[in-house]
Amino acid sequence: MHDAVRAAADLRALLGADAVLTEPEDLSKYESGWRYGKGKALLAVRPGTTAEVSKVMAYCHGRGIRVMPQGANTGLVGASNPDASGEMLVLSLERLNKRLEIDPINRTAVVDGGVLLSELNAALTEHGLMFPIDLGADPTIGGMIATNTGGTRLLKYGDVRHNLQGAEAVLADGTVVDVMNHLRKNNTGLDFKQVLVGTSGIYGVVTGAVLQVVPVPRQHATALVGCASGDAVLALLKALERELADVFTAYEAISANALNAVFKHHDTIRNPYAAQPPAYTALVELSSTLPGTALNLPEVLEERLGAFLETDEGEGITDVFMGKPEDFWAIRHHISESLRNEGKVLAFDISVPRSRMAAFTDAAVALLAQDYPFVRCCDFGHWGDGGTHLNLVWNEAESPRPTPVIVEELQSRIYELAVRGFDGSYSAEHGVGPHNQRFYDAYTPEPVKAVNRALKDQLDPKGLLGTTRLGPLA
Amino acid sequence: MHDAVRAAADLRALLGADAVLTEPEDLSKYESGWRYGKGKALLAVRPGTTAEVSKVMAYCHGRGIRVMPQGANTGLVGASNPDASGEMLVLSLERLNKRLEIDPINRTAVVDGGVLLSELNAALTEHGLMFPIDLGADPTIGGMIATNTGGTRLLKYGDVRHNLQGAEAVLADGTVVDVMNHLRKNNTGLDFKQVLVGTSGIYGVVTGAVLQVVPVPRQHATALVGCASGDAVLALLKALERELADVFTAYEAISANALNAVFKHHDTIRNPYAAQPPAYTALVELSSTLPGTALNLPEVLEERLGAFLETDEGEGITDVFMGKPEDFWAIRHHISESLRNEGKVLAFDISVPRSRMAAFTDAAVALLAQDYPFVRCCDFGHWGDGGTHLNLVWNEAESPRPTPVIVEELQSRIYELAVRGFDGSYSAEHGVGPHNQRFYDAYTPEPVKAVNRALKDQLDPKGLLGTTRLGPLA
Repeated sequence: MHDAVRAAADLRALLGADAVLTEPEDLSKYESGWRYGKGKALLAVRPGTTAEVSKVMAYCHGRGIRVMPQGANTGLVGASNPDASGEMLVLSLERLNKRLEIDPINRTAVVDGGVLLSELNAALTEHGLMFPIDLGADPTIGGMIATNTGGTRLLKYGDVRHNLQGAEAVLADGTVVDVMNHLRKNNTGLDFKQVLVGTSGIYGVVTGAVLQVVPVPRQHATALVGCASGDAVLALLKALERELADVFTAYEAISANALNAVFKHHDTIRNPYAAQPPAYTALVELSSTLPGTALNLPEVLEERLGAFLETDEGEGITDVFMGKPEDFWAIRHHISESLRNEGKVLAFDISVPRSRMAAFTDAAVALLAQDYPFVRCCDFGHWGDGGTHLNLVWNEAESPRPTPVIVEELQSRIYELAVRGFDGSYSAEHGVGPHNQRFYDAYTPEPVKAVNRALKDQLDPKGLLGTTRLGPLA
Repeated sequence: MHDAVRAAADLRALLGADAVLTEPEDLSKYESGWRYGKGKALLAVRPGTTAEVSKVMAYCHGRGIRVMPQGANTGLVGASNPDASGEMLVLSLERLNKRLEIDPINRTAVVDGGVLLSELNAALTEHGLMFPIDLGADPTIGGMIATNTGGTRLLKYGDVRHNLQGAEAVLADGTVVDVMNHLRKNNTGLDFKQVLVGTSGIYGVVTGAVLQVVPVPRQHATALVGCASGDAVLALLKALERELADVFTAYEAISANALNAVFKHHDTIRNPYAAQPPAYTALVELSSTLPGTALNLPEVLEERLGAFLETDEGEGITDVFMGKPEDFWAIRHHISESLRNEGKVLAFDISVPRSRMAAFTDAAVALLAQDYPFVRCCDFGHWGDGGTHLNLVWNEAESPRPTPVIVEELQSRIYELAVRGFDGSYSAEHGVGPHNQRFYDAYTPEPVKAVNRALKDQLDPKGLLGTTRLGPLA
């Protein structure tokens, strides 16, 4: 049992009094995950520089105190909040947000790990630049690296990994690893920063990053396209991409169930269809840095959709609506909240190869209809990236109660279908944490676990960092 | 001392007679690197399937035979040919080229590690697709992964790492690791394949890959732009990128010395300038999947260049020539060979942050003028990516002979300037091998070497694979 009073006193001596929080009311915001996980912290410490992070880690290493690095704590798998032991120190990066340097010619930004995505983009706007990872939440850059966030515009820009040039990390014993590479081309053996990407902070605390940033688009064009089936969604994707790849920034598909929930709960959002929506509605977004004088994006989009309607595959298209990006994205962004208004939601974060999205969704719906008729599949997602949030609404009036046993069974069956049946993933973009640890354990090849064990032994031999476990079971 | 006769007999029993080569005349092509390195092989073995690679590795592991995995042996750092000991078995992947499956909707290709880049692109063309890593050589896909090749269109498409979804590898003991991920989004902890990317085959033999592929552009536009200085090259880059990012595929800069060498040695290549070329000539390439009816690329490029000429920074531009891509790229592609016709060439593969390219090149030229006046700097490179081949032509008539001592000293001073003086790299895109091992040893942070040591101990504990050493010095 660690002595919180002594640790607090020691850390205050190292970092100053206001860097350390110990009162329950101060700690509560650091203890609960955004969607999953409720824990109890030994205390919280908020270093303001990489050197201070190093001091905290060296101290904890010496005393054997477990540490949970935490950014904005917006993760969705419970990987950034302490466990229930009351023994973990929360290392909050919220004050590690001083560095924010933009190099417009190199097209990079150097940031502290605790800088928020919104802060970064605000600073970049002045230069006509942006960090292109488009998310609903406002995480820290360090958290985005540890999670390798994706978002809605991955189709064009890739995930965090694709836009990360360099990183700085503090290891469990306080060692600072500086691989703050500012280079697009640097092929000098193992790319160490990849060890930090998507590994939930268990190999080191990400204290800094060099990010590649991109010019802000000058124009957008969006359409909603009614699709009679998942196959029609895919045929349209392929046809659009072939010609529009350079300016194709998002391709979302929304099931009729998800769309109807939005219309039901938001009077201000109008159903564009004359009657019921078709099986899927695709949201197509184009954007470009080219000015409208060189390229008329709405015209190009309308022309391409018209040409597709003339083909045999165009028979799967029921409707085409051209419209304003903000109106169409409003529909997309109100789905999660509308579903919560419908009942208990069981959320999934699945990907499969794009070519198998329709077949997978059909198989999942069939499985649910047969064995879980009391859930309604309200799927939507990033079909352009092969990602789907196969969210289920639990009709509590006509069903068994959603007990942990039945919820776990349902999760297991859907993820088994995705992973084993369709070469898919149980975590498309949320990462790995306590919430989905059991799927990591089940689906990760043993040699990969062994490599993780070797990395953990090297970088954090006392096993102090984080709660996610990527090595083999003990 | 290993017994080549016994090993050959054993491997023939495992794989069939024609899989094993032992005669000196058959072995010679496997023994010399494309640019550096001449070794001697114990024998060469050419498995045709991943299972056969596994058998070979298990056999060598049991006998303690060192192995050099080899693709097309087109690498430029000597990392794919055996050392001089005569004790290394060459594991050629030239027959591991059966799998080549294209999924047009997922926009991916599944390939065996021994498939050539040219073979892949020939198959992709039928689908209007391509693998966008644009190189002078024709390597295997496995070799491209082990080297993380970049090429001339990295500005738009990224390097191999950016276009790799999954991989299959055989470890030193014969274990097959299958992470043949077909997903754009799959955030399930450590991305194991990153351990294989750019690590010269020392952690495993890359036997398969899932590659992300892209639509072939429908149109191109190119210009040659005379720039009075390196700063003018950078100012133009920034201005073009802001508006043209979506269609900006290459930005090369060629020094007057390099350009003059091409004109001197190739009568068919015309000097477009009225007199001597300016300090740099930028080759700008735009390309797009959009048809000419939607976007007139040559017009857009000409308009943008014209607009830049009207600005204050436009004063650095001396000439603008619009022309055919094949004509302008012919100039670029004849540089290396023209320089070799000028005398002994000392080649460099450097990158620095793009914003520091001009300052770095000026500093390098000043250093050379002062201490090595007998070399002529004929630099050219991918300024859009911060890469430069700072190639030096040795004037043997008026200089000391290029002895190993003076060559090594010169290399050390130029790379020191790049790495320490300008946050650059001693290997922008060629990778690490015996040719540049000493720079890896000098410039790699110790914690990164320690992680490499841990990976090697885990994946190849007997140290049998390759000659590149990424761990700490013994």
